[in-house]
Amino acid sequence: MSHATGAHVHTREPEPSAEPLETRYMRVRRGTESLARPLSPEDQLVQSMPDASPVKWHLAHTSWFFETFVLAGLAGERSPRADYALLFNSYYDGVGPRIARDRRGVVSRPSLEEVRHYRREIDERMAARLASGRLPADRIGLVELGLAHEEQHQELILTDVKHALHANPLLPGYREPAAAEVGAAAAPPLEWACFDEQIAWIGCAAGKGFSFDNERPRHRALVPAFQIAARLVTAGEYLGFMADGGYQRPELWLSDGWAAMRASGWRAPLYWHEREGAWQVYTLRGTRPIDRDAPVCHVSHYEADAFARWARARLPTEFEWEVAAAHRAVDGALADSDALHPQPAPGPAGLVQMFGDCWEWTQSAYGPYPGFQPEAGAVGEYNGKFMSGQMVLRGGSCATPAGHVRSTYRNFFPPAARWQFSGLRLARDVP
Amino acid sequence: MSHATGAHVHTREPEPSAEPLETRYMRVRRGTESLARPLSPEDQLVQSMPDASPVKWHLAHTSWFFETFVLAGLAGERSPRADYALLFNSYYDGVGPRIARDRRGVVSRPSLEEVRHYRREIDERMAARLASGRLPADRIGLVELGLAHEEQHQELILTDVKHALHANPLLPGYREPAAAEVGAAAAPPLEWACFDEQIAWIGCAAGKGFSFDNERPRHRALVPAFQIAARLVTAGEYLGFMADGGYQRPELWLSDGWAAMRASGWRAPLYWHEREGAWQVYTLRGTRPIDRDAPVCHVSHYEADAFARWARARLPTEFEWEVAAAHRAVDGALADSDALHPQPAPGPAGLVQMFGDCWEWTQSAYGPYPGFQPEAGAVGEYNGKFMSGQMVLRGGSCATPAGHVRSTYRNFFPPAARWQFSGLRLARDVP
Amino acid sequence: MSHATGAHVHTREPEPSAEPLETRYMRVRRGTESLARPLSPEDQLVQSMPDASPVKWHLAHTSWFFETFVLAGLAGERSPRADYALLFNSYYDGVGPRIARDRRGVVSRPSLEEVRHYRREIDERMAARLASGRLPADRIGLVELGLAHEEQHQELILTDVKHALHANPLLPGYREPAAAEVGAAAAPPLEWACFDEQIAWIGCAAGKGFSFDNERPRHRALVPAFQIAARLVTAGEYLGFMADGGYQRPELWLSDGWAAMRASGWRAPLYWHEREGAWQVYTLRGTRPIDRDAPVCHVSHYEADAFARWARARLPTEFEWEVAAAHRAVDGALADSDALHPQPAPGPAGLVQMFGDCWEWTQSAYGPYPGFQPEAGAVGEYNGKFMSGQMVLRGGSCATPAGHVRSTYRNFFPPAARWQFSGLRLARDVP
Amino acid sequence: MSHATGAHVHTREPEPSAEPLETRYMRVRRGTESLARPLSPEDQLVQSMPDASPVKWHLAHTSWFFETFVLAGLAGERSPRADYALLFNSYYDGVGPRIARDRRGVVSRPSLEEVRHYRREIDERMAARLASGRLPADRIGLVELGLAHEEQHQELILTDVKHALHANPLLPGYREPAAAEVGAAAAPPLEWACFDEQIAWIGCAAGKGFSFDNERPRHRALVPAFQIAARLVTAGEYLGFMADGGYQRPELWLSDGWAAMRASGWRAPLYWHEREGAWQVYTLRGTRPIDRDAPVCHVSHYEADAFARWARARLPTEFEWEVAAAHRAVDGALADSDALHPQPAPGPAGLVQMFGDCWEWTQSAYGPYPGFQPEAGAVGEYNGKFMSGQMVLRGGSCATPAGHVRSTYRNFFPPAARWQFSGLRLARDVP
Repeated sequence: MSHATGAHVHTREPEPSAEPLETRYMRVRRGTESLARPLSPEDQLVQSMPDASPVKWHLAHTSWFFETFVLAGLAGERSPRADYALLFNSYYDGVGPRIARDRRGVVSRPSLEEVRHYRREIDERMAARLASGRLPADRIGLVELGLAHEEQHQELILTDVKHALHANPLLPGYREPAAAEVGAAAAPPLEWACFDEQIAWIGCAAGKGFSFDNERPRHRALVPAFQIAARLVTAGEYLGFMADGGYQRPELWLSDGWAAMRASGWRAPLYWHEREGAWQVYTLRGTRPIDRDAPVCHVSHYEADAFARWARARLPTEFEWEVAAAHRAVDGALADSDALHPQPAPGPAGLVQMFGDCWEWTQSAYGPYPGFQPEAGAVGEYNGKFMSGQMVLRGGSCATPAGHVRSTYRNFFPPAARWQFSGLRLARDVP
Repeated sequence: MSHATGAHVHTREPEPSAEPLETRYMRVRRGTESLARPLSPEDQLVQSMPDASPVKWHLAHTSWFFETFVLAGLAGERSPRADYALLFNSYYDGVGPRIARDRRGVVSRPSLEEVRHYRREIDERMAARLASGRLPADRIGLVELGLAHEEQHQELILTDVKHALHANPLLPGYREPAAAEVGAAAAPPLEWACFDEQIAWIGCAAGKGFSFDNERPRHRALVPAFQIAARLVTAGEYLGFMADGGYQRPELWLSDGWAAMRASGWRAPLYWHEREGAWQVYTLRGTRPIDRDAPVCHVSHYEADAFARWARARLPTEFEWEVAAAHRAVDGALADSDALHPQPAPGPAGLVQMFGDCWEWTQSAYGPYPGFQPEAGAVGEYNGKFMSGQMVLRGGSCATPAGHVRSTYRNFFPPAARWQFSGLRLARDVP
Repeated sequence: MSHATGAHVHTREPEPSAEPLETRYMRVRRGTESLARPLSPEDQLVQSMPDASPVKWHLAHTSWFFETFVLAGLAGERSPRADYALLFNSYYDGVGPRIARDRRGVVSRPSLEEVRHYRREIDERMAARLASGRLPADRIGLVELGLAHEEQHQELILTDVKHALHANPLLPGYREPAAAEVGAAAAPPLEWACFDEQIAWIGCAAGKGFSFDNERPRHRALVPAFQIAARLVTAGEYLGFMADGGYQRPELWLSDGWAAMRASGWRAPLYWHEREGAWQVYTLRGTRPIDRDAPVCHVSHYEADAFARWARARLPTEFEWEVAAAHRAVDGALADSDALHPQPAPGPAGLVQMFGDCWEWTQSAYGPYPGFQPEAGAVGEYNGKFMSGQMVLRGGSCATPAGHVRSTYRNFFPPAARWQFSGLRLARDVP
Repeated sequence: MSHATGAHVHTREPEPSAEPLETRYMRVRRGTESLARPLSPEDQLVQSMPDASPVKWHLAHTSWFFETFVLAGLAGERSPRADYALLFNSYYDGVGPRIARDRRGVVSRPSLEEVRHYRREIDERMAARLASGRLPADRIGLVELGLAHEEQHQELILTDVKHALHANPLLPGYREPAAAEVGAAAAPPLEWACFDEQIAWIGCAAGKGFSFDNERPRHRALVPAFQIAARLVTAGEYLGFMADGGYQRPELWLSDGWAAMRASGWRAPLYWHEREGAWQVYTLRGTRPIDRDAPVCHVSHYEADAFARWARARLPTEFEWEVAAAHRAVDGALADSDALHPQPAPGPAGLVQMFGDCWEWTQSAYGPYPGFQPEAGAVGEYNGKFMSGQMVLRGGSCATPAGHVRSTYRNFFPPAARWQFSGLRLARDVP
């Protein structure tokens, strides 16, 4: 494909939202509830592993976040349910004790109905504050943070309920099967976009639309020339890796990855099942045959790294990815597409799928940018304290709310995590 | 107290029930459902530890038992939901694969409503079979077994939901607090019943009312002279053990018990909490102050054994207990008393509390009687395969359905188990 | 075979030893050292699992035992190395703190040479005391206990070093290969000895030769009629169990046994290796082909129990075994035979192999006899505190010192233990 | 202190060694043996944790390395002990199977004497090859690699035997106590060296003296302005952190670090012991009082990171460290100083202790440089496969052989590792 020049060194700053904050608040909050709608109170209580939380917990926790970080301490505000902090605080040590993370599934009380009531109560208070403009300036930023936070939990609702329903041997779906045919679209052949060495601006400047603290400060970095694949790796390509002994050849794997794979018994991506010699995949719309043209998904960093080595390539660094993504339109399937599963890349069209479909594992360990400062106060526990032992993913997935991601956005998970919609895109050095 | 003679060597055979089987079937099944009634669908899904199951699972499993062992294979019977076996088989390897025991809490589907429907369907079929007398003779015994089995799960519903609600930091109760005052009744002083050496009949003869295979065959055993406490050990006495360093003195403990206690951090019975220097106890009716006169409960075999050593006594053998219990009326609080917590012993009145209030740990490891034969077929997995690593408890508890226990009844749990209503009664050698 | 009558109800009391205590002390102590002789200082440091101890540790611990329980506190006695208690106390809480059991292999210092010096020092003091008769009467019994204790550690030296050398991928032998041919002797066909119901005397009376506290008091028990196999189960018979799917059929196993077998990956006895389709066995004299006529050995209680069920028989109770063993001469291979491996039973000759060759798992959980009293003082921790979670073995093995066992002797190990020379003999009910 | 300019952007290339390879080979090999000399065969067998290996294993493994990667396959070479690969291969999957890492302590055979013999045999062959020049060109580089590898194991011999001896409750020393007085030298006050933003050359060019593949390729990076502490953090400063609740304040810790610290029970650096209110430290020369002026050592990355946050600073990136270290002379205590413990910094003298005393944790996760290529063949498993989940340390320690380190040298360990001589130096942003 055509050669991308090093001229694209300045990424476009995100636009400030035109939507009034009050309207956006209600839209985001309603969006969370609509995700829960297909689920019974029982469905919403299931916690299928320590890393995944019950849907009801997500509904309550996001409300607790607004109560605790926006409303608490304002004149006239008093917690309707102070005891909820014990249940719905996630990990904010600065705020107090809480139930162990892996015990969230025992919280049958408050009931889902009571949690919905709690949401409504918080929403009424927030609406009153936002409408009247009686919110101190420093709390406006916390509302923005709370909405971005709630959007993250919208994605987690989908990934966590997928894991929960899949843990049920009956393999129920979250939604009805899609009409779309498998194999309707063919993935284009693998091409590479080329980038010259450059001093690139990385990260997001404060004050230019919302960003998380871990995207800041915006700073320069020297990024050597590189090539990056024009599309995501497909399920068909991954089947080739499997057929070539990918899970049996230690030379392809990081040492920790080999150990994790063997200990966990992985021999295919999560949610793949072999039935009578054919591979099927469990999706949020039930089980279906593998679509070889769709991106491979639900692989760990270790598997992504091993695949890349097998393909005589490597994972991109997060800076390479950001350089490649700058100025690109958000094009892939996000949650509003309702596909709920990654889709095949469109025909030959340059660099595609940079946003949506699958989060893309990078080779970058998650750490602070030069000059990083966590947010002040307890919300400073949001990102910084996780800067150890995790890897950066970029781009967003088919479970990510529209409008949530941008080219500077940094997602992060431990290298063995597979329950997120995590896939990969190849990169390579310029010879 | 008066000296019990060795004349009581033959225990009374249990009376055959006068209630028609069909009536009894419906009464027992309705009893199970009434236990679930105070609980929401969410409450009934919680699994707070691998050994405890969700209430919904108990409702379904007991129905699956009748379907599988009574109805299956009869002409015209076809499973309404063959896929349920995967979810609601407990441990019958002879019947097929099943979900892992510690994953029962993920089964949000079928919903509670669907499980109730399944119960009704099984009940209709069973009622038709029982009314018409179209049940083969060999299956009548399996109905009896199924009812005794269901009664065991009635007790487990109470013990498991107690554990589940207690896992919630808000400590909700299963039922409203009781009106009864703590300290209203005083436990009588400790007295001993004495028994001469005897050749005793132990166990239950086949054909004399229902019994489990592990109670059979009835056989003779030489039981040396012994003394047994006239009542259960009280909470007040147990507080004395704690105050005397009971949990800090290795010489009082079995080696495995000391290790388990240290590893688990036990320093009091399960459900006891120290609040500002005073001990409280969580019950199925909420948290209340300790009643020193009530029996201590929710202790492991290891704690019971250590207490007995501290008290310069020992636990009785299961044969001693059976000799002492023979011909006694069932006198203590069972589940129908609605107390849902062990009650203080009545005033000086000889040997009391032999049945109900608390299961009594014995010093006997659970094993086969001489000539033991498991039931034929898959129900033979009921008792025999657990005859390793467990200890016998005798007598029944405040969660045991009335009519379920008898003097030959053998309950069994691993020595570290504490979530059952398990207490102790002392015994000692005759000097 | 001929019918054994119920007349043998009184076992012969063990004879008091005619050997002067001082002579016996030196003989036993020298015996321990001769077991260590084929081993380098490095060999004697290896600890291959928490349950097995380094040979050097056994050498030191047995000396510490005499120092602590016989010499300490006597006028003029002062510990040459008070700090050794930290290293060489096994589990006596009454004596003080100690190194964790699984850390004994880190104790490179004191060196083997220093430990030998320590042994000599203790021996000199003991010899002086024993020669002069300057030992208080109550300590004479402790010398007897110390010698029986040392004999137990002699057996453990062999079982532990076998495990240690086998952990080395080079599979070195402890001693040179034996000249004896495999298959030289054929095991006789399986016959049964029959015993009538009887009131038997069980256990050992105090004051009639040395016995452990767990063998006392001697008491009567009603033992129903039973049959017991005339010889041990052979490796060939065990191969039949394996070939018949013994390790794949859950109906043959105790529930805990099935779980332990699966978790541990057992598919044959410990020390058996399949090489090119043929089974070999690692012995203290190196690796050799399986001898189908020799007793199967190094099986867990769970495997023994499953084999017995497969063979439509059961394990004997410890009382049945004791009834059958009473008055029998010690006939099998003990450690002094130097075979170091169980030997085929001699030709048709009635009840054989009751002592030696292999310890025999019984179906009896290890517990106290009626009226059991532990030894007074810290040595009371010797047996009683382990009366939980273990199973009784009877008879002795090819690693047991001659003169150590008797018909009342109770050995005990957890049901999953396999590194002892543990085999089995079948029993069955009289129809 | 004076302002260091950005002019130092090009680090000095390491000088090619003037010493003939054959001489160097023998010097390095003799050095390894002299480290083992104070230790008995028993000492050299101890493995006190899975990450640490027995000294004997180090002696054999380093020889196996030369045999396998330099000699094997050359005409006339045949392994004297092919079976040793099973024992002394560390982690080279390309070479074949091997004993589990945590089982190296069971290898009593071959004996230390046999391993010494094996070393001599390899040395003779190597000497013959090196003297005659009969070594193919591509193997010369492997000799260089083998010597650098052996030097790494020299350091590990010291760190591993320290851990092994410390596991012995008697706390024996590796060498005699040093004459040096605690507190003889005072650490200078904390000053900062300042560096301007620069495009720095990072890493080592191929062909300019020996380097590991992970130091290559040499490449440019944009390093923002920073300040770095002139000396290491001292034990006294670390005591201040401890006294200020450092181990009790979650806001100072990374999330993983807090969890690891709580799970492991850390409350001070490894080898620190509180005795009657005073802190002592175990060293290779025995236990002594803490020297507040000496660098703190044996802390994990998590502790280093928490300390830095407490001190309102941060850890340097590995690039910052390399920029600061370029052109500096190796000045701190290395293994040849025989101090075997980090020493206080010399008086005010600019940037000191950059090499030696303690490895310095950086905030950089260990990963590949742009364009990284592992060594060809099985030695390619040396570094690349560990580029996950580990953190970079720079500079060397008091256990590092003289001549081993350089400014581009990258050491790496998991963030929870504490048994290396790992300390820290602070850095901070330029305001």
